Amino acid sequence: MKNNFQCSCNNFFAPLLVLCLSLSTAVQADEGMWTFDNFPAKTVGTKYGFTPSQAWLNHIRSASLRIAGGCSASFISPQGLVMTNHHCVVECVEQLSTAHRNLVDNGFMAKTAADERKCPAFELDQLIEIRDVTGEVQGALAGKTGDAANKALFAKRAELEQSCGSDPTVRCDLVTLYHGGVYDLYRYKRYNDVRLVFAPEFAVAQFGGDPDNFNFPRYDFDIGLLRAYESDKPVATADYLEWSDNGSQDGDLVFVSGNPGGTARELTVSQLAFLRDIVLPSSLPEISEYRGQLEQFVTRGAEQAREANQDLFFTENDFKGGLGRHQALLDPQFFAQKQQEEQKLRSATAADAKLAAYVSAWDEIAQVQRQRAQLFTRHSTLSNFSFQSRLLGAAITLVRAAAERRKPNRERLPEYTDQSLVAVQQELSAAVPIYKDLEELNLAFLFTVTQRDLGADDPFVHKLLGNESPQQLARRLVSGTQLDDPKIRELLYNGGQSALSASRDPMIRFAVSVNDELLEVRKGYEAKVDAPTRAAAERIAKARFAVYGTSVDPDATFTARLSYGSVKGFEDAAGKFVPPYTNVGGLFNRANGAPPFRLPESWLRAKGALNLSLPMNLSTTNDIIGGNSGSPLIDRQGKIVGLIFDGNIFSLGGDYGYDTAKNRSVAVDSRALLEGLDKVYHVDRIVSEIMAARH
Amino acid sequence: MKNNFQCSCNNFFAPLLVLCLSLSTAVQADEGMWTFDNFPAKTVGTKYGFTPSQAWLNHIRSASLRIAGGCSASFISPQGLVMTNHHCVVECVEQLSTAHRNLVDNGFMAKTAADERKCPAFELDQLIEIRDVTGEVQGALAGKTGDAANKALFAKRAELEQSCGSDPTVRCDLVTLYHGGVYDLYRYKRYNDVRLVFAPEFAVAQFGGDPDNFNFPRYDFDIGLLRAYESDKPVATADYLEWSDNGSQDGDLVFVSGNPGGTARELTVSQLAFLRDIVLPSSLPEISEYRGQLEQFVTRGAEQAREANQDLFFTENDFKGGLGRHQALLDPQFFAQKQQEEQKLRSATAADAKLAAYVSAWDEIAQVQRQRAQLFTRHSTLSNFSFQSRLLGAAITLVRAAAERRKPNRERLPEYTDQSLVAVQQELSAAVPIYKDLEELNLAFLFTVTQRDLGADDPFVHKLLGNESPQQLARRLVSGTQLDDPKIRELLYNGGQSALSASRDPMIRFAVSVNDELLEVRKGYEAKVDAPTRAAAERIAKARFAVYGTSVDPDATFTARLSYGSVKGFEDAAGKFVPPYTNVGGLFNRANGAPPFRLPESWLRAKGALNLSLPMNLSTTNDIIGGNSGSPLIDRQGKIVGLIFDGNIFSLGGDYGYDTAKNRSVAVDSRALLEGLDKVYHVDRIVSEIMAARH
Repeated sequence: MKNNFQCSCNNFFAPLLVLCLSLSTAVQADEGMWTFDNFPAKTVGTKYGFTPSQAWLNHIRSASLRIAGGCSASFISPQGLVMTNHHCVVECVEQLSTAHRNLVDNGFMAKTAADERKCPAFELDQLIEIRDVTGEVQGALAGKTGDAANKALFAKRAELEQSCGSDPTVRCDLVTLYHGGVYDLYRYKRYNDVRLVFAPEFAVAQFGGDPDNFNFPRYDFDIGLLRAYESDKPVATADYLEWSDNGSQDGDLVFVSGNPGGTARELTVSQLAFLRDIVLPSSLPEISEYRGQLEQFVTRGAEQAREANQDLFFTENDFKGGLGRHQALLDPQFFAQKQQEEQKLRSATAADAKLAAYVSAWDEIAQVQRQRAQLFTRHSTLSNFSFQSRLLGAAITLVRAAAERRKPNRERLPEYTDQSLVAVQQELSAAVPIYKDLEELNLAFLFTVTQRDLGADDPFVHKLLGNESPQQLARRLVSGTQLDDPKIRELLYNGGQSALSASRDPMIRFAVSVNDELLEVRKGYEAKVDAPTRAAAERIAKARFAVYGTSVDPDATFTARLSYGSVKGFEDAAGKFVPPYTNVGGLFNRANGAPPFRLPESWLRAKGALNLSLPMNLSTTNDIIGGNSGSPLIDRQGKIVGLIFDGNIFSLGGDYGYDTAKNRSVAVDSRALLEGLDKVYHVDRIVSEIMAARH
Repeated sequence: MKNNFQCSCNNFFAPLLVLCLSLSTAVQADEGMWTFDNFPAKTVGTKYGFTPSQAWLNHIRSASLRIAGGCSASFISPQGLVMTNHHCVVECVEQLSTAHRNLVDNGFMAKTAADERKCPAFELDQLIEIRDVTGEVQGALAGKTGDAANKALFAKRAELEQSCGSDPTVRCDLVTLYHGGVYDLYRYKRYNDVRLVFAPEFAVAQFGGDPDNFNFPRYDFDIGLLRAYESDKPVATADYLEWSDNGSQDGDLVFVSGNPGGTARELTVSQLAFLRDIVLPSSLPEISEYRGQLEQFVTRGAEQAREANQDLFFTENDFKGGLGRHQALLDPQFFAQKQQEEQKLRSATAADAKLAAYVSAWDEIAQVQRQRAQLFTRHSTLSNFSFQSRLLGAAITLVRAAAERRKPNRERLPEYTDQSLVAVQQELSAAVPIYKDLEELNLAFLFTVTQRDLGADDPFVHKLLGNESPQQLARRLVSGTQLDDPKIRELLYNGGQSALSASRDPMIRFAVSVNDELLEVRKGYEAKVDAPTRAAAERIAKARFAVYGTSVDPDATFTARLSYGSVKGFEDAAGKFVPPYTNVGGLFNRANGAPPFRLPESWLRAKGALNLSLPMNLSTTNDIIGGNSGSPLIDRQGKIVGLIFDGNIFSLGGDYGYDTAKNRSVAVDSRALLEGLDKVYHVDRIVSEIMAARH
């Protein structure tokens, strides 16, 4: 059943973004982030004259990679060479830098294999197998509610993930699709020895900076190269992607294989209203305030800039993405479309007696939002304790790991099962630099926001701060802790509960003092919000399957997906047509010598040698979202024609719906990539490896 | 006609704020910020048993003052002693400070009359007369639209204001009430020699800082004392407020006389939606980002903290107020009430054939919002050029003043009429310190936001930045300019167009280069948004008068208003009753030694001498809003029982409607004020003056 809501695009407000989304529940235009086991090959064949075979799909899936930190990548040679974005490896580049050698600013090239340098904390996952475990999981959950349902799910997850065995090079993840309509067990090959091969200068990788972010035309050289190792040798990879000889042309069918992080297209209207009216209005100003702090911090000196420039970059990116999502939800026409769509499905469900059990699910989720509103501020504020600071995060992890490891695997928090502890342990022991001045900023901000959000009279705030100000507490904890030393972290991890109890480290003692409250608030939220939402969403998913069939893609979940589309321009907000390709010459035209439009010396020097008419970046209709960064853009031969690194401004509403007319992915063209590697950076060893990999 | 929309308070979201507003168009509870010539004395008499006489009203009006910077105040002795808030004089206190003498941190006391120090830029206005000029102004506007209407209004304003003559101690303002339903000419006595008499330490004036801001219970000593001088002598004031002997009691009738800055209760639903969906979602993150920058700036050192602490304080205050307003508008029940109210008035208008001319006004304003959406970003971004930086603001003022002064008075921009130039000239020549490092932060932020909001490809952005980054441009302008010297500013002002044309000052040259674009955007916005909005709003006002009569108070316009109410507690968000008084002992209990809950030494030393059971702060039902800061809280005898300095958290939605049950003003109790002046600060000279002023 097709339901094409026509979109007339005469929306009321939205000065910048005119969202005109196809909110169809069936396949629409090039919409969809498809799982590899449910790819609409026939639809693609009908539309584009190419029907991917199962072998083709298996090959692409096996050559594709997930970067555990939140990106995508692919093998591009039989010697384990990996291509992704610069902004997906920049954390590693920064960790390998020192105050005297700034690799982020200056770039990195491993002249020989021996010069390839291990990223301190990096995990690449290669999807090997998908197994449907829906019946098993739904069976375990049946009839349970609240905390009991969560416990059952955690136990089942631990059991299923553990079923892959204890080989640390294998990772199994229970994957929730359609918000509980389907559960799959994804089996990955896990690579932990990942080494940096090449990174260009930040100034050209992120050319245009925040002003150009999520914009097109664009001129970025946003590539990073890694290599996967095992037993200190490059991995021999059977499946890898070859470089295209010719690149793409306007209109060509192209695919993106990657791991979109998350979408919210299946959410109910009450959930979307919650995002629009509560979550985003509180989170966006907070992100902005943190951004402002970082903006000033990096002006203090070169070293502070080196320490925090990446955090600033990602904070800017977070903000712009969130603002775009908010603008989409604030667009009255867009929201009305979501309401219409929901009403249509609800009516169809109500009209079919067999679906009677599902009818109340939407109202139940709306009811949950009222509960959620009560818990939201406290929950979201306390959730930040694990993420705002590396030092406090490590302390909390150590405290919880010690407690959880004493429990049977099935009874642990999901992030401390035996399977999960592999990554926990690696992260704790990784020799990543920690900057205490930046940590102090982070913690002072966390405590300030906690005091502000919960109120100065909140008992937890009293316990937290005692007679100290947020700044004083942050300074005392950061100056006194030794957790910046990976050896100390490892000792505490290995020493377990007794080592922790004996530790006088102020950050550990602080983590111990707040941990109970953090866990209690989390547990309450999971029982009162997550569990009932999951139960109702599962029923909505079943109603949707019953009404529309199963040929719909599930919301993104940072798991392997394939999208199809074509190279295509679009009309900008002013109605002007933007062609799909920029060229290398345009990069030089746009450069003005001032950040963020300053080109590095390497490019300025090489200009005469470059073919300025080669395509630089391109736009395509592929349906992608954050997490797809680093995804290969491939043609029907499965060859690389580009490297996804962004979306255009209209893609920002993509969380909630795909806009056929305007939503575009943005990629570096394969021809510019090769030209730059060859003629700007002269990484002959790598260029030869890429060339040799072609059949 | 009374229209009491019952409020059931079961709103959907709003975890913190449960707004339950009385949206009546007739007098409701203690709602109303009344003009002195339309005060509902009989209503007060009926409800509270005291009917203010015209003499009583005249006395209060004449003893009340407006601080041109955005606060309220009052004469409290026959020798021109003025009481207001510390946060209303803190800018002066900071301007009188040096790197070696931090009066903000340490407080200021003028031991003798000779020690009273002139605030570099300060204006007090005392309302003398109100004259209705509605017919004249509406006549001048009749039949005109767009730019022509604006020109007619500006000319009429210049003419009316000039009619008061050229005495710089007299000021006449054309005041727009009911969004054009009424025009009045307000005649003020203007005081420009204003001297600082007393300011406590910031730590006790703003005790609790941002966490306690807009909260109650509260324990602030937020008082500042000034004195008005003329001819180098204290002004002899016939009307002044006496100190109450006994203070107030729970339930007592109390009045607030002050200058509420602005409310938006008469806006149409489409205007409110514009605020909710476009203005606040873009402005709140921007304020937050700036706040974050200041938060880091003040951590650089004691001098930076001294320079920027006040800006940070006011930025925090702006943000919290804006967030509260946004939460009010995002409350679906509240918004539905506004919709109902509008529908009711529209229906009544449509039902009366005599009102036919007004029926389309609401749709016209809705139509204007579409136009406004197109112009909003550019207009709001460029508007900041005059306000974000003192140096650039001065440069733009100099450039415009030179050009405008060559025109006839009637043809000038309103802020450059002869009447307005008095203040312009005083501000330019005032010897206020300008901190170049903070100016650089401000300008870099302005240019960054401009590049971000208009896009890197915008022609104006290109012209603005050329080949510089926002930071580079800010640094070059700030380091090169001499406009931080008041003598230079005065020379340029007096030298007029030829001096400006000859100036090589980079800030002047920059202002010249951007001024045309700034004015063009402003003029376009005024013609396409302001003019049609005013024309339609005037008709809505007439419809409202026709349907509901004239016994409604107009939206606040930073002009003299009187509100009535009573000392009263309220229920907090958790349903717990908060009594109306705190006491001095509570201040010491709440102090924990860490900012913002650190008490200054003076208070800690004096503790033993203080009567800890005296009321410290109190809450009342008076309907107030920002701008009322510094207003006296007076009893039926017209005596001072407190000093308004804040509202509670529920008052934040007061921009759009008054919540009888929860909206509270917050004041320092007169008894704590006297106790502190006497026993903490021992300002015997002042205490005696206050005591002697009593009859």
